[in-house]
Amino acid sequence: MFVLGVDPGVSRCGYGCVEASRGQTRAIAVGVLTTLPSEPLPQRLAALDADIRELLDDLHPDVVAVERLFFQANVRTAMSVGQASGLILAAAAKAGCVVAQYTPNQVKQAVAGYGAAGKEQVQRMVQSLLGLAEVPRPPDAADALALALCHVAAAPLQARIEAAT
Amino acid sequence: MFVLGVDPGVSRCGYGCVEASRGQTRAIAVGVLTTLPSEPLPQRLAALDADIRELLDDLHPDVVAVERLFFQANVRTAMSVGQASGLILAAAAKAGCVVAQYTPNQVKQAVAGYGAAGKEQVQRMVQSLLGLAEVPRPPDAADALALALCHVAAAPLQARIEAAT
Repeated sequence: MFVLGVDPGVSRCGYGCVEASRGQTRAIAVGVLTTLPSEPLPQRLAALDADIRELLDDLHPDVVAVERLFFQANVRTAMSVGQASGLILAAAAKAGCVVAQYTPNQVKQAVAGYGAAGKEQVQRMVQSLLGLAEVPRPPDAADALALALCHVAAAPLQARIEAAT
Repeated sequence: MFVLGVDPGVSRCGYGCVEASRGQTRAIAVGVLTTLPSEPLPQRLAALDADIRELLDDLHPDVVAVERLFFQANVRTAMSVGQASGLILAAAAKAGCVVAQYTPNQVKQAVAGYGAAGKEQVQRMVQSLLGLAEVPRPPDAADALALALCHVAAAPLQARIEAAT
């Protein structure tokens, strides 16, 4: 199973893809899609949309795991994250991927063992779980890998719940 | 000049296209794109994205005018409107349209003459400006026509400002 984690944002959109197979997980791709703040917003969103579709085309993930934000610090951030996440969710559905959304707390709980874990703890756990020589950088990319790992951890239980209901 | 106004939303996305030529404006198309609340969000966004691209393909607008929302009632609404507006802005830029954003107050000011105008006043002004036999319905579609008319009203001054700077 290939899982692509995406941490949505218009300026910086982190992504990280992991392969989970027979209890083993390994990182396949990791990076950040960026757009220029000097460009007009519609052009930035069109560029991000093209980059996301290219990424889905290259990696062919089975699942796309996207950060779900309920409570944003402010409405302007919510609007901007909403614009990026709208593009990602639509592109992932169009590509035929299973789409899963997780809150930051769910990700921390799954990767570091408790929902109030700090950013550095999460990054070290991502490094350890994927057997990486270094903490994945930049932080947006580490967050995206954590999202993918969260789905890998949550998927077996979700499958059992779905099968039972 | 063909101007497509869009009032973004995931459940209901109003659109209205007007042609402005030699001081005359007339309505070309008006309607609402809807998605089913019973469907998963990624599928709804993918369907909305496909509908928007088809609309741009059919109408070939020169300009797409989208509602800009600074202050939403709540973060959940901001996120949802952000997701829809992200798709619209990206698709319009990709189609090569000029993209303009106007706040609800700018629209009311342009169409009804003052920024605190009520919904019914705006609808009657849209009817009058476009010479329609009835008030355009549903309200989302009337709002979208008002956005298009706002751009038609604002464009000459904007062009003069751009030429002067």
